[in-house]
Amino acid sequence: MDELRLTEMLDKVRDGSLSTDEALAELRRLPFEDIGYAKVDHHRAIRVGYPEVIFCQGKTKEQIAGIVDRLMGASRVIMGTRCDEGQYAYVASRHEGVVYHKEARIFVAKGCLPRAHEGSILVVSAGTSDIPIAEEAAITCEVMGNATERLYDVGVAGIHRLLAYTGKLAEANVIIVVAGMEGALASVVGGLVDKPVIAVPTSVGYGANFGGLSALLTMLNSCASGVGVVNIDNGFGAGYLASTINRRMA
Amino acid sequence: MDELRLTEMLDKVRDGSLSTDEALAELRRLPFEDIGYAKVDHHRAIRVGYPEVIFCQGKTKEQIAGIVDRLMGASRVIMGTRCDEGQYAYVASRHEGVVYHKEARIFVAKGCLPRAHEGSILVVSAGTSDIPIAEEAAITCEVMGNATERLYDVGVAGIHRLLAYTGKLAEANVIIVVAGMEGALASVVGGLVDKPVIAVPTSVGYGANFGGLSALLTMLNSCASGVGVVNIDNGFGAGYLASTINRRMA
Amino acid sequence: MDELRLTEMLDKVRDGSLSTDEALAELRRLPFEDIGYAKVDHHRAIRVGYPEVIFCQGKTKEQIAGIVDRLMGASRVIMGTRCDEGQYAYVASRHEGVVYHKEARIFVAKGCLPRAHEGSILVVSAGTSDIPIAEEAAITCEVMGNATERLYDVGVAGIHRLLAYTGKLAEANVIIVVAGMEGALASVVGGLVDKPVIAVPTSVGYGANFGGLSALLTMLNSCASGVGVVNIDNGFGAGYLASTINRRMA
Amino acid sequence: MDELRLTEMLDKVRDGSLSTDEALAELRRLPFEDIGYAKVDHHRAIRVGYPEVIFCQGKTKEQIAGIVDRLMGASRVIMGTRCDEGQYAYVASRHEGVVYHKEARIFVAKGCLPRAHEGSILVVSAGTSDIPIAEEAAITCEVMGNATERLYDVGVAGIHRLLAYTGKLAEANVIIVVAGMEGALASVVGGLVDKPVIAVPTSVGYGANFGGLSALLTMLNSCASGVGVVNIDNGFGAGYLASTINRRMA
Amino acid sequence: MDELRLTEMLDKVRDGSLSTDEALAELRRLPFEDIGYAKVDHHRAIRVGYPEVIFCQGKTKEQIAGIVDRLMGASRVIMGTRCDEGQYAYVASRHEGVVYHKEARIFVAKGCLPRAHEGSILVVSAGTSDIPIAEEAAITCEVMGNATERLYDVGVAGIHRLLAYTGKLAEANVIIVVAGMEGALASVVGGLVDKPVIAVPTSVGYGANFGGLSALLTMLNSCASGVGVVNIDNGFGAGYLASTINRRMA
Amino acid sequence: MDELRLTEMLDKVRDGSLSTDEALAELRRLPFEDIGYAKVDHHRAIRVGYPEVIFCQGKTKEQIAGIVDRLMGASRVIMGTRCDEGQYAYVASRHEGVVYHKEARIFVAKGCLPRAHEGSILVVSAGTSDIPIAEEAAITCEVMGNATERLYDVGVAGIHRLLAYTGKLAEANVIIVVAGMEGALASVVGGLVDKPVIAVPTSVGYGANFGGLSALLTMLNSCASGVGVVNIDNGFGAGYLASTINRRMA
Amino acid sequence: MDELRLTEMLDKVRDGSLSTDEALAELRRLPFEDIGYAKVDHHRAIRVGYPEVIFCQGKTKEQIAGIVDRLMGASRVIMGTRCDEGQYAYVASRHEGVVYHKEARIFVAKGCLPRAHEGSILVVSAGTSDIPIAEEAAITCEVMGNATERLYDVGVAGIHRLLAYTGKLAEANVIIVVAGMEGALASVVGGLVDKPVIAVPTSVGYGANFGGLSALLTMLNSCASGVGVVNIDNGFGAGYLASTINRRMA
Amino acid sequence: MDELRLTEMLDKVRDGSLSTDEALAELRRLPFEDIGYAKVDHHRAIRVGYPEVIFCQGKTKEQIAGIVDRLMGASRVIMGTRCDEGQYAYVASRHEGVVYHKEARIFVAKGCLPRAHEGSILVVSAGTSDIPIAEEAAITCEVMGNATERLYDVGVAGIHRLLAYTGKLAEANVIIVVAGMEGALASVVGGLVDKPVIAVPTSVGYGANFGGLSALLTMLNSCASGVGVVNIDNGFGAGYLASTINRRMA
Repeated sequence: MDELRLTEMLDKVRDGSLSTDEALAELRRLPFEDIGYAKVDHHRAIRVGYPEVIFCQGKTKEQIAGIVDRLMGASRVIMGTRCDEGQYAYVASRHEGVVYHKEARIFVAKGCLPRAHEGSILVVSAGTSDIPIAEEAAITCEVMGNATERLYDVGVAGIHRLLAYTGKLAEANVIIVVAGMEGALASVVGGLVDKPVIAVPTSVGYGANFGGLSALLTMLNSCASGVGVVNIDNGFGAGYLASTINRRMA
Repeated sequence: MDELRLTEMLDKVRDGSLSTDEALAELRRLPFEDIGYAKVDHHRAIRVGYPEVIFCQGKTKEQIAGIVDRLMGASRVIMGTRCDEGQYAYVASRHEGVVYHKEARIFVAKGCLPRAHEGSILVVSAGTSDIPIAEEAAITCEVMGNATERLYDVGVAGIHRLLAYTGKLAEANVIIVVAGMEGALASVVGGLVDKPVIAVPTSVGYGANFGGLSALLTMLNSCASGVGVVNIDNGFGAGYLASTINRRMA
Repeated sequence: MDELRLTEMLDKVRDGSLSTDEALAELRRLPFEDIGYAKVDHHRAIRVGYPEVIFCQGKTKEQIAGIVDRLMGASRVIMGTRCDEGQYAYVASRHEGVVYHKEARIFVAKGCLPRAHEGSILVVSAGTSDIPIAEEAAITCEVMGNATERLYDVGVAGIHRLLAYTGKLAEANVIIVVAGMEGALASVVGGLVDKPVIAVPTSVGYGANFGGLSALLTMLNSCASGVGVVNIDNGFGAGYLASTINRRMA
Repeated sequence: MDELRLTEMLDKVRDGSLSTDEALAELRRLPFEDIGYAKVDHHRAIRVGYPEVIFCQGKTKEQIAGIVDRLMGASRVIMGTRCDEGQYAYVASRHEGVVYHKEARIFVAKGCLPRAHEGSILVVSAGTSDIPIAEEAAITCEVMGNATERLYDVGVAGIHRLLAYTGKLAEANVIIVVAGMEGALASVVGGLVDKPVIAVPTSVGYGANFGGLSALLTMLNSCASGVGVVNIDNGFGAGYLASTINRRMA
Repeated sequence: MDELRLTEMLDKVRDGSLSTDEALAELRRLPFEDIGYAKVDHHRAIRVGYPEVIFCQGKTKEQIAGIVDRLMGASRVIMGTRCDEGQYAYVASRHEGVVYHKEARIFVAKGCLPRAHEGSILVVSAGTSDIPIAEEAAITCEVMGNATERLYDVGVAGIHRLLAYTGKLAEANVIIVVAGMEGALASVVGGLVDKPVIAVPTSVGYGANFGGLSALLTMLNSCASGVGVVNIDNGFGAGYLASTINRRMA
Repeated sequence: MDELRLTEMLDKVRDGSLSTDEALAELRRLPFEDIGYAKVDHHRAIRVGYPEVIFCQGKTKEQIAGIVDRLMGASRVIMGTRCDEGQYAYVASRHEGVVYHKEARIFVAKGCLPRAHEGSILVVSAGTSDIPIAEEAAITCEVMGNATERLYDVGVAGIHRLLAYTGKLAEANVIIVVAGMEGALASVVGGLVDKPVIAVPTSVGYGANFGGLSALLTMLNSCASGVGVVNIDNGFGAGYLASTINRRMA
Repeated sequence: MDELRLTEMLDKVRDGSLSTDEALAELRRLPFEDIGYAKVDHHRAIRVGYPEVIFCQGKTKEQIAGIVDRLMGASRVIMGTRCDEGQYAYVASRHEGVVYHKEARIFVAKGCLPRAHEGSILVVSAGTSDIPIAEEAAITCEVMGNATERLYDVGVAGIHRLLAYTGKLAEANVIIVVAGMEGALASVVGGLVDKPVIAVPTSVGYGANFGGLSALLTMLNSCASGVGVVNIDNGFGAGYLASTINRRMA
Repeated sequence: MDELRLTEMLDKVRDGSLSTDEALAELRRLPFEDIGYAKVDHHRAIRVGYPEVIFCQGKTKEQIAGIVDRLMGASRVIMGTRCDEGQYAYVASRHEGVVYHKEARIFVAKGCLPRAHEGSILVVSAGTSDIPIAEEAAITCEVMGNATERLYDVGVAGIHRLLAYTGKLAEANVIIVVAGMEGALASVVGGLVDKPVIAVPTSVGYGANFGGLSALLTMLNSCASGVGVVNIDNGFGAGYLASTINRRMA
């Protein structure tokens, strides 16, 4: 249900061709048509301005495909995160044109948002093992219509590698820093720039890493200001937050 | 050392009146003139675009005043956070025009940044006890040149209080959510808007609150996308991050 | 041993046909006939007013079936929780009429309690992934003789979905809230109603969720009063507690 | 604003003497008249059926008295929890008839709810040091109109003390169990009765007690069904929850 | 090397047929003949009065058999704990007379200590799932020459089951309490008797059990005096400690 | 109420001068005469064979003195732990002959148990700062009638200091090991002897000591068998447990 | 790029055959030639004086082989840690002369550093299960050109085993202590010697070991001075740190 | 007792003027003359090559002075750490020539070790608030005879400040890194040098810093090799470890 249909309905209320109660009932029914296991939220694109995103982990392939079915008519853009290859294959067998980003574990079932402007988001990662989460962030940014750059494997234990790219850091509107053992990277990047930095701790590491807790605490305690943190391994959340920032910038 | 002096020096390098080595040496010396207990970073305003901020907690009043002395010549704006009344009184006795925001525990020793545009930051807090941290965030936003709105005491246990203000939520460019026991507020606000939300967990509460850990985990696990989290009680960090976002927006 | 037999025995004590010592010995022997690996508690239905419940996880299928055998004669109602399909199949192969609720992982081997009155328990869940635990709670309520309603997928990140159902919230005697990442739902529901709310944190989520700890702490710190919390993923416990409340209400 | 006034207003809407918009505006304004530091929620008594409760800890005595002032006209019952003697003295100096329960740290500024019926709540505590929290629960129950019994110092290390009072356990509608080191008491009581048990862990103890975490985990892991847990030291929350249960019972 | 051989050697030192240096060298060599991956400690039986125990978990079957080989000549009693069936089968294929206690996961490769006296150790367990750990404790006691009694499935949620066996509690010299979810059992037993109680927390449970941490903290915070705690799931350690106590008693 | 009076009462039951109901009522009343804030447990000495112990921390001096009053007639031995000097002074001002052990923070209000035999308990401590807890253990042992030895300041960082005293270790029936930073001492002692070792972790230390958690975990993970652990800083508990062991030994 | 080539390039800068910009560009390009998934750091051997080490865990075998390919020309020594047998087999199938140390899970693809002097590193381990981590440390030391000794299975529960080898402790320049349950070993060794001790906690153990946390905390709280700790199971890190110490010693 | 006296005594044993038993007895008595509350360890300087260090925190001023008294005759160097001004004043009033380092909270009661060579230890700190711990490390190094350099306030949020001092990093034999919020500094320094780095996490910070846990975990997870970690705030331990390394280097 797009904005046009919403306006039409409200006009009918005004001219009396639809009672308040009928309008209310319709509005209540429309936002989340009940499909048994999940209330699909057609209003979401209107309400928060972005496409519906399906968190695939822990859902059956049939549930995922069912949600895609319902969304097809209403949403401009549909994507799924934490999607394994089996889940993707099933969705692709029922819908044409589904694209799968394997490293990011994301599928895109319908379109991407048009690019608003050329201002870019830069995704920086510390180590090779952080790349899957970094890609989840980067693909999310791209699907949501942002020019997106990548700068990988520039951890602080070899600080000169990062410093060789200060130009890249200077050009971006928003920077996403993805780091596991080296949660320290967020502090260093945050100290080099005067722009929003979104930090994603990853669960990469071993020993007293405690599933990413170490990097999470480091990032929260960053002595550089201007750093916001999302949950451990939440590349999508970082990409989404960076998008809400970037698309409003000139 | 302001931008003018930096340009002059580089021009001298170009026309040969200053050797590369001399220029290098001067640059290295200037950024942080050593005053014994802290390297004051005159370059910071140039490098990251913002005023110097002094974290007062754990510093003696003499150390704070000493840092203010050195910064006076170089920075346009000087502020101190986590500043108690005794520290403020000492600084005020040595410098004219120092302003103290008691609830926010912030002093401003010199100027505020000019307002870039009318786009605003909205600071939302859950309970009465969260107000000191909310004020730390709000004053930081104001000092850094942002139009700033406040919406306090709208916790989720009385959700209709928040919903009565959806208009305010819609008008802001960036929203800061400050909540202790009710870390839940960040999720609810994040689900209502399509703009950047900065969440500040506070240590307000008791029992299994564990000094703010409860609210921190809730916010990191927010099922609303577009939420970035700063450290427990870090109102300044939230204000700073919100400022880096807002001042780039139209 | 039902109440009738107990009364008969005590009468015999009164008229002298059974000595106190004999009565005592019989009472001590009866409550938990020893079957080697578990003391089956025939008195339980009398003592706490409810059927015997077998926690299947960690027991062999033979142990479960053995406990069912012994309970058959004594209990009106027998159910098993955390029961996987293999365990169920084995029990069903030895007893007629065993019913399996797959999503809730519960089997019912004998009867349900009769419905006391029409006052109902409402089970509310935040996300699709919380449904198995929500079903464990709902089936438990039904087996224990309660009118039971369900309201699923109404997490706080889309608060309007919950608010569309305030009528349902108003009608129930007791509300069970099941939520993982969104532990926040318990606070919101607790603030909307003036009736007992039982909160079940689930281990659904990732990152700094720490196996449900995040939702658990949120619920314990709920700023809405009138919320009691059970263990992570303990849908059965919530259903049982809600039943003890509902069946006493008019 | 009591129910009578609400009904009158809605009648005016029906007969046209008040427009929908005017009614809406009034409703929105009424619920929480802004007094600067806290939004007083006059609607609360209507909405959730209970009096306003002020959590005093962390508020200045002036803030507490200010909230009492505003509530005086609207609420039938006003109480404050976690109130120290200084806060109480200030409130009592400005309002007549304020009663202080020292051990429970509760003041009652206006009335108590009338007793609905004779069904009672029993408050059980494990040790002498748990009594302040137990009293917070008991006074809350009394203010909210419940017949309330106390059974203190019956910890599980002397299980015969508890067993001597099984009659008391049998008579109550709801049981609140308050225990620190001996979190075990909730399991034992829960196993003896077939009625709702509300467990309150306390921070009493030392060593690996970790501020009440030990008792909290014990209670959450109770192998007795029918036990709901509130936050550490949250006697008020337990009393409130018990009240929502008891007042609906016959 | 038994005590006889040790005495003989020292006598030779006294009469000069062995130099101090030679004796020293032999003593140093004997205690732990190096077999590459583990220093077998032949002196242990002499030094601490008990047989050698092999912790099998994490060792290859070849390593276990190798250690058994070396111990065969020197020790009176050899046992292995945390031994799976594959490890047992391999050891049994190389040595005659090896006995396997499947539920306890213990093998005994050579003899048992003779029973010192009739004073007994009682092993009490809370739930059916705690039995493997309880058996590890009980078999350890038996191998080490103690009369051993068992009392299983007497958790505190049905306190009358335990109270029916106070006679058994009164007869034992030492009591081992094994409990998971119901760590509370140790407090209750400790309050009923005036003898040493060894508490073993188990990792049985789910949710906020955290791998046995819940039961461990409960037991450490037991308000009954006279309770010593061993590590989570450490049935062997409890049996060993109980043995050191019991065998000295009359 | 001593054993004599108990026997007399039961004799009256047998000869009919007291009905069963009267006897039952008296028995129920006697064990814990209600004094308002604590149920004094006169039966305790009979039931568990030891004197009543008052945990003074968190009790007012009036409460402590009140409990002492009631116990005076019934108990042979009365002691208080965690007693500060102010509490002691108040008790001493109301009762003659109260003895205070300042370092152990224990007062003894009435007698000590007679010494059963010459077998001794040895209290070993790692560092100077652990002495108060070690003394709490040692005084407890002495009050409870045990020959008690002390061996202090023999931490593992200077292992030769401990090894110089292996004779002392060999002579004791039971060994209590008190250690903070150096929780390791329990493992070393446990490896040197074949007798019960009771380990007391202390909260002495700093940094990642976490209030004694470090020493607690070390002791629980001790690779020496025969070690039981009590709560952090619980010197009394260790002394009590050691006493239950020692007094049964020849 | 070895030191020779670096010197040649700088000489060209001095004599003008290479412009500063060209030199700068080449230097920037050289250090980490981009191979898509990892920036190979040819400068590392020059910059920090040691060979490149590949952390294999979490990398595909193709990624590992690709990194080896690139390093072949530039580095004198190439090794991989946490390498399973499948990864090794793939690398060995593409390069000649690759050596695999199975227990240490290390492969060496090219050379070892020459031995600087005869001063040695001693690797001490507590239990048989700690050997894989101890071997990771020892092989690392050997590859990096150190004389390396091993002393395994000398845990503190049998302290005489360690004390028999004080000569070995005295001979080494640096000592690495590897211990799981027995984190205590580091304190004991540290108290016996006056040389650097590197402690490696391992995740060996069970129960309240919490994945090595217990040993980690013990080692950090060691009361022996002169002990530095590396991450849980980080044998490589300990070997590397010991090497940086040993190769500078005479 | 210095080495001379030890040699004399052993010579007497060789020539028969002292029996082995007498020598043994004397040796056992000498190492730690008992002064009631602490065993003073005169052998320590011989055994581990360094002066005796008194950890003053938690000791009375009389205890400290008493230990100094006993050590005066035997040790070349005596120092006390964690010494507050009151403790120092008392010691200084009883001994001449005691020097107090206020910021480091260290007193030196007798001499310093002579400087072995000019190779130096560099102490690096991140923030102004870390200086007390950094000074504890630096003074320890100086007392133990090391050339010691300081480089303070070079945290990673302003990485250029650190990079301006790479020369200093290159000159030192060993580097101590002291950092609280900015635990990241250890990784950055470790990546810049090929020498031993000792990392000291400090408890400086707030929020999710958890008393230094955040910095501790960051340092343990450092992706730079060659970093050893000591306990939170343990500046002395770092200085001591660095000394054992430096004094052996050429």
